[in-house]
Amino acid sequence: MSNGGGAPSSTTHLLDFLEEPIPGVGTYDDFHTIDWVREKCKDRERHRKINSKKKESAWEFTKSLYDAWSGWLVVTLTGLASGALAGLIDIVADWMNDLKEGVCLSAMWFNHEQCCWTSNETTFAERDKCPQWKSWAELILGQAEGPGSYIMNYFMYIYWALSFAFLAVCLVKVFAPYACGSGIPEIKTILSGFIIRGYLGKWTLMIKTITLVLAVASGLSLGKEGPLVHVACCCGNIFSYLFPKYSKNEAKKREVLSAASAAGVSVAFGAPIGGVLFSLEEVSYYFPLKTLWRSFFAALVAAFVLRSINPFGNSRLLIPFILLGYSVLLHDSKCQPVIFVAAITAVVAFPNPYTRQNTSELIKELFTDCGPLESSQLCQYRSQMNGSKAFTDNPNRPAGPGVYAAMWQLCLALIFKIIMTIFTFGLKVPSGLFIPSMAIGAIAGRIVGIAVEQLAYYHHDWFLFKEWCEVGADCITPGLYAMVGAAACLGGVTRMTVSLVVIVFELTGGLEYIVPLMAAVMTSKWVGDAFGREGIYEAHIRLNGYPFLDAKEEFTHITLAREVMRPRRSDPPLAVLTQDDLTVEELQSTINETSYNGFPVIVSKESQRLVGFALRRDITIAIENARRKQEGIMLNSRVYFTQHAPTLPADSPRPLKLRSILDMSPFTVTDHTPMEIVVDIFRKMGLRQCLVTHNGRLLGIITKKDILRHMAQMANLDPESIMFN
Amino acid sequence: MSNGGGAPSSTTHLLDFLEEPIPGVGTYDDFHTIDWVREKCKDRERHRKINSKKKESAWEFTKSLYDAWSGWLVVTLTGLASGALAGLIDIVADWMNDLKEGVCLSAMWFNHEQCCWTSNETTFAERDKCPQWKSWAELILGQAEGPGSYIMNYFMYIYWALSFAFLAVCLVKVFAPYACGSGIPEIKTILSGFIIRGYLGKWTLMIKTITLVLAVASGLSLGKEGPLVHVACCCGNIFSYLFPKYSKNEAKKREVLSAASAAGVSVAFGAPIGGVLFSLEEVSYYFPLKTLWRSFFAALVAAFVLRSINPFGNSRLLIPFILLGYSVLLHDSKCQPVIFVAAITAVVAFPNPYTRQNTSELIKELFTDCGPLESSQLCQYRSQMNGSKAFTDNPNRPAGPGVYAAMWQLCLALIFKIIMTIFTFGLKVPSGLFIPSMAIGAIAGRIVGIAVEQLAYYHHDWFLFKEWCEVGADCITPGLYAMVGAAACLGGVTRMTVSLVVIVFELTGGLEYIVPLMAAVMTSKWVGDAFGREGIYEAHIRLNGYPFLDAKEEFTHITLAREVMRPRRSDPPLAVLTQDDLTVEELQSTINETSYNGFPVIVSKESQRLVGFALRRDITIAIENARRKQEGIMLNSRVYFTQHAPTLPADSPRPLKLRSILDMSPFTVTDHTPMEIVVDIFRKMGLRQCLVTHNGRLLGIITKKDILRHMAQMANLDPESIMFN
Repeated sequence: MSNGGGAPSSTTHLLDFLEEPIPGVGTYDDFHTIDWVREKCKDRERHRKINSKKKESAWEFTKSLYDAWSGWLVVTLTGLASGALAGLIDIVADWMNDLKEGVCLSAMWFNHEQCCWTSNETTFAERDKCPQWKSWAELILGQAEGPGSYIMNYFMYIYWALSFAFLAVCLVKVFAPYACGSGIPEIKTILSGFIIRGYLGKWTLMIKTITLVLAVASGLSLGKEGPLVHVACCCGNIFSYLFPKYSKNEAKKREVLSAASAAGVSVAFGAPIGGVLFSLEEVSYYFPLKTLWRSFFAALVAAFVLRSINPFGNSRLLIPFILLGYSVLLHDSKCQPVIFVAAITAVVAFPNPYTRQNTSELIKELFTDCGPLESSQLCQYRSQMNGSKAFTDNPNRPAGPGVYAAMWQLCLALIFKIIMTIFTFGLKVPSGLFIPSMAIGAIAGRIVGIAVEQLAYYHHDWFLFKEWCEVGADCITPGLYAMVGAAACLGGVTRMTVSLVVIVFELTGGLEYIVPLMAAVMTSKWVGDAFGREGIYEAHIRLNGYPFLDAKEEFTHITLAREVMRPRRSDPPLAVLTQDDLTVEELQSTINETSYNGFPVIVSKESQRLVGFALRRDITIAIENARRKQEGIMLNSRVYFTQHAPTLPADSPRPLKLRSILDMSPFTVTDHTPMEIVVDIFRKMGLRQCLVTHNGRLLGIITKKDILRHMAQMANLDPESIMFN
Repeated sequence: MSNGGGAPSSTTHLLDFLEEPIPGVGTYDDFHTIDWVREKCKDRERHRKINSKKKESAWEFTKSLYDAWSGWLVVTLTGLASGALAGLIDIVADWMNDLKEGVCLSAMWFNHEQCCWTSNETTFAERDKCPQWKSWAELILGQAEGPGSYIMNYFMYIYWALSFAFLAVCLVKVFAPYACGSGIPEIKTILSGFIIRGYLGKWTLMIKTITLVLAVASGLSLGKEGPLVHVACCCGNIFSYLFPKYSKNEAKKREVLSAASAAGVSVAFGAPIGGVLFSLEEVSYYFPLKTLWRSFFAALVAAFVLRSINPFGNSRLLIPFILLGYSVLLHDSKCQPVIFVAAITAVVAFPNPYTRQNTSELIKELFTDCGPLESSQLCQYRSQMNGSKAFTDNPNRPAGPGVYAAMWQLCLALIFKIIMTIFTFGLKVPSGLFIPSMAIGAIAGRIVGIAVEQLAYYHHDWFLFKEWCEVGADCITPGLYAMVGAAACLGGVTRMTVSLVVIVFELTGGLEYIVPLMAAVMTSKWVGDAFGREGIYEAHIRLNGYPFLDAKEEFTHITLAREVMRPRRSDPPLAVLTQDDLTVEELQSTINETSYNGFPVIVSKESQRLVGFALRRDITIAIENARRKQEGIMLNSRVYFTQHAPTLPADSPRPLKLRSILDMSPFTVTDHTPMEIVVDIFRKMGLRQCLVTHNGRLLGIITKKDILRHMAQMANLDPESIMFN
């Protein structure tokens, strides 16, 4: 193609490396799967070019340096942006959460805690009460106590919760439908090599950030951890457009996204090592060691940015968002399910302190053991000072009325959380599962912990407790039970293992908790596996019909490649191209009559010996390009994929050379290859398709879709649930 | 082969799955590379058999449960054993280290600390002085002070150091030559799929454990961390023989070894997460997620066993070892280099307190910042009480004479450690690099730290220090400098990244140190990479000529498969077998005339179409087996690899069917495939060989050895340095 308009190319160059690339060849359609092998070859080729030019001039040398450092640069930027966004989301969501209860008169943009912190009139014990902070009842009715003000507060709480939820769902609907949900199933699919345009774009980023704040503030039973991973991946994707190395190569871009997802978990939990392991264990598909190191770096940068963001006075940015939001609110009103769930959540949540408060704070409170300084209701044990001295060898204490009340409220909160989380996760708002699952587990764990503690107190002569409860040591720590419960619940939902233990370890500190945590996570994983082996993200991927080839799931059937390949016995023969005796017209009709994404090229119909593989998209682009730029290409022009043009009669039109779009090294397997090996090759090499031969002759083709369909069939599922290719 | 002695097999079964396996087929010779694909297929086949039998009886069900749990069982056992051995090594090495200086009269088996701990007469300040502990001078000369007793102690120190070193090297030489060195390069090679029989056997385990104690106690500049990984892998290998799932499958066995290496690092540093990441980043080759989880478990079990081993009164086991050692000492005396290095080490190390003391303790001391309770020489700063009050806003203090003395001794220790470590690592004793490298880095870091601290003290008005040193905060902490130096030095030697940061993080605690640590590790890695990209373990692998295909190193050349494959242009044609017209005699002569490990099987010499691949070892075993068990197999018997026997003349002898040993799904690539893809396939799929075709015809073969030779050629190295296949 390099000599468009001139004589037919007859270069003797081995690989046609120097031919000018046809624009568009090597790109992908939306909802298609990338070819990892081709992308990685492209990147190595680009790398070689830069390296060979490097010594030519100082400018080229600078460019090569920039290229070498761009990987670090992009993960640094991603880490910075994710950390900053997470900080912003935290601050604004806190403020809006408190807005449901009241407002700070001295400074509108302060949340409850900040408002009273700046006040000089408060003591440490009454740190959440100060004259500057007015509840809505105080503001509107002018009184702080009494049933009237309680109802006023209740009403305002519901009003704000509904407004936030309504705004969130409308924004998602109107501006960026991809912003809903947790996003982790889609990110897993994208990382495995699927193209979903716009899923990680700037609109999704903006709307997801805003609606995440609104959804969290509305009090819906959802977490911001999964959405933060999505936000971080959007940042990674957007920054990768600054660097041609990443923007032009889908495989390289996915390395950045792996690092970004680590940064997302890192800011969600403040657990950088856990973030790296989460990226490795749960979301990533292709994870070279270089990515491990960069993920770690991104996770650290993000964690430090988040930590260094001062949580005071930064939330002025919010106001335009709110205005924008309200203008939308006035236009759209088709968001019933969200409003319904939000209304129930708000109505039921308000009276119970454990459901009203921020879920992260609830978890923190449940994890904390009762020390002498702890003023929470959960720690209102009856004092030991009044009791006899005989109890001093048993450090556990009898529960007071506060603990009993808390137990009832926790039981109700548990039931409420379980029901609301189930309904909330399906809503069209950004919603994470981590925090709600952990909260459910933590509540259950704390209830069990307190029960065992009281059992140990009243029956400290039982053999079990005698063994455990040594003199002077806390033998039952309800906080640890809550931690273990949280880890077990989240483990059961997501089937994470190492990364979950490390995240909870980083959250709580202290290696001594690792063994109970591991035992709990393993038990919950096994119990969960007994009901079905897939975690919630895999289940979502399957429900959405994404073509995701799970690297964890083992293929255990004994089928052979020839049983899976197309064409089947009843099918028409395989659509193939011959290397040098087709005309442009025949080629076009073959393409138009079929819908395949690519065609094997063979020596001749008789021998069926395989030469290579040509992609449909590339052929179409190349023909169009040739017609536009090369003279003499007619419908009856001969198409050839060989190195040299075939000998043609004198009056025939100029032939069309398509060797440059021919993949001369397609992957092949024999028809006797067990499918377990074929699946392994697809997973590890990231293939789109693979050709099947028998004794050197082309027999058929296996695509990723064929494999997914076959696996669905083997698991007695509907193979047509795999929608995209 | 199922019907030995009967009529030729004509089963129509698809894959000959039910044919009885020929004993020996599918095993490997020493110093050969395993075929990962075949091993994994074998394991899935075994798994399917157990699963299908599961419902037949309660016994079969129990067997399937045992099979499913055996993975957890073997890593638990490995973790327990590694933790116990590490504890034993710690205790005994401590005791023997103190034996160089004196002996506990009240209880011989107590080390210095334990001896004085049990004594009632000591105070906390003088905790290392008590009447029960006698230095050698006190015991022999009857006096504790004076030049005579110093020389006596010096002499005894050298005497014991030389005895230990001598004993260690003799034991290694006589009983287990594989026990020398750190073992990590060999373990990396074994995990990549190489067979070295006996390297992880019980003799190696026993001798490595004993000689490691001796080598550490002798005061040589070496660490026990690498050898502990080797010890843990020996445990893993030995325990895997209890479970047929692991003992009979080389790929599965390597999963256990990956987990074992994590346990080894875990006990070496008390860093379970770091151990898992070390296994993932540094030593493992094939690391499925299941292994990640099991490695984590093994690392935790090992860490907890080590922690729970009480360091008191457990060392009686030592005495028989010592007796055994001395009997050997009397017989062998060809261990000059070790004795020479040990002698120099002992002579130079004794006068300097920083080289005399245990290296781990030295590192701990260097990492510790000077608090009010610290009595070390490094913390003898001049008291501030005497100084003017103007200095109170600068927390750094002027160095006292103790610090100056320590600085000189540290400088000498640094030079000494650098020189001795270089010579020690090549010796034929178990020797690790971790602790000596960390010690060198920590000494250098502490020296720099104290220097900067004094600079900040005397020039606290400099802009740099003004910025840093806020009021009331320690602005320069020499302990942190030592930590960073240790991490940087170890990072430069091994080129570890994430795992190193996590290990030092787990050693020291505190997320705030991670950023300086990361910066140091990255800088040292980049500086090191500027001199050459390989770490010390990769360099050792190359020096030893192991066939290790590094997964980290990128292949960046543009060669094609046809340039690497054999036969080359000048070579004789490829040795191939035809599928149905060879006789046993022809087959045997083909095998005897060549030294290849396997032969492609083709349809016929004319068509060159590929049918499959047969391994030399399997063919030899199958022919021998047939001659022994099947009647009528002669030299002129026809050999056939096809499904059905070829039609033969009536008087011809009984044909020999070899289809069961034919690999009908060999990996193939086309001659146009770029070598970067071929290398990728070899790495990811773990291949031994791959066949090369052109337009469906067999052209040649590429083996792992060919690839390594080609890579060496491309790097301008001697390709013949790759010794084994």
